[in-house]
Amino acid sequence: MADKYGNIPNIVIGRLPLYLRALQYMLLENHLVTSSKELAERLGISAAQIRKDLSQFGEFGKQGTGYQVEFLVRTLKQIIHVDTTWDVIIIGAGDIGHGIARYPGFNNQGFRVIKVFDNNPAKIGTKIGEFVVEDSATMEEKIKEGNIKIAMIAVPASQAQQVADNLVRAGIKAILNYAPITLNVPPGIQIQYIDPVMHLQKMTYYL
Amino acid sequence: MADKYGNIPNIVIGRLPLYLRALQYMLLENHLVTSSKELAERLGISAAQIRKDLSQFGEFGKQGTGYQVEFLVRTLKQIIHVDTTWDVIIIGAGDIGHGIARYPGFNNQGFRVIKVFDNNPAKIGTKIGEFVVEDSATMEEKIKEGNIKIAMIAVPASQAQQVADNLVRAGIKAILNYAPITLNVPPGIQIQYIDPVMHLQKMTYYL
Repeated sequence: MADKYGNIPNIVIGRLPLYLRALQYMLLENHLVTSSKELAERLGISAAQIRKDLSQFGEFGKQGTGYQVEFLVRTLKQIIHVDTTWDVIIIGAGDIGHGIARYPGFNNQGFRVIKVFDNNPAKIGTKIGEFVVEDSATMEEKIKEGNIKIAMIAVPASQAQQVADNLVRAGIKAILNYAPITLNVPPGIQIQYIDPVMHLQKMTYYL
Repeated sequence: MADKYGNIPNIVIGRLPLYLRALQYMLLENHLVTSSKELAERLGISAAQIRKDLSQFGEFGKQGTGYQVEFLVRTLKQIIHVDTTWDVIIIGAGDIGHGIARYPGFNNQGFRVIKVFDNNPAKIGTKIGEFVVEDSATMEEKIKEGNIKIAMIAVPASQAQQVADNLVRAGIKAILNYAPITLNVPPGIQIQYIDPVMHLQKMTYYL
């Protein structure tokens, strides 16, 4: 995708959140200067790759002096656009929907869940923490009103494609899908999958 | 890690499940021959990278004739050791624990959830689908008895490190962690994180 940084491969963009997380942990540890070598050890990605990835966005470190962690965190947040807070909606008030509605990990990472929808009359109007589950029939209207761009799908696989279609029609631009199914979305719509199988399969090689 | 294929970088191993998933979808579509170029388009990884990754495990395709999808699926499953079914336990019977205990996506992917544990007396003995929630106090004994190697942690962040320590002591070798916290595990123990923030942050760059 062409943008202010030029044509940067998806795979490079995909590594930036990993770098950001590792750097944020360093800050928590009051660890203020780091190196591509140290990041490499934490992340299992080569130091050369890390230097190459970061160099695509500017000059972050001087040869021999390393990276200033706080500056790099701030800059990475700007690059991936999480120096702001995005409103996010959840579709599906089942187990997973409940879990992510109450997930404490979004705080200060650029996201805030603002609404939870379901199409089951037995669930509409019930509470999940601070949220009252809203009727999916009102979802498109509320997405447009709120100019919401990000949604998380936590419905059964059989309903997920229909939900995705409705989301896209309403103006959603990025979908995080928990349903165990691959979704078709138009070009320009971002989609990511939460798939425990994929993570488990990254480990069994070593067992 | 040295093994029968030599010293293959983690990052390469981490891409194999992606290839496997894409190839399995091709099989479902009755799409029997593919190419690195086609896989590249589906995955957003360069064709050269895919060829290089796969070539580390042997000869899968002949120049110009492409890859036999079914053979490649079978071989990748052998390589990452999911040509068998691994028993997996869940620790934490909250929202996320419920969700993954009932997750239908593990079928035929090399994994089967066999037990769910919790330390809350109000949850022990309750049912989640076919499972009866068992007392975490019995967890180590049952891991040893069952020679279980894989666990998913779905407890609050504040309890996750203690649970991980107990799992490792009992013989668990691979942990999938849903708690929003980085865990310390000894060398040789595999750990993966399910982190919706990371996935959301891979998309916001494009918004």
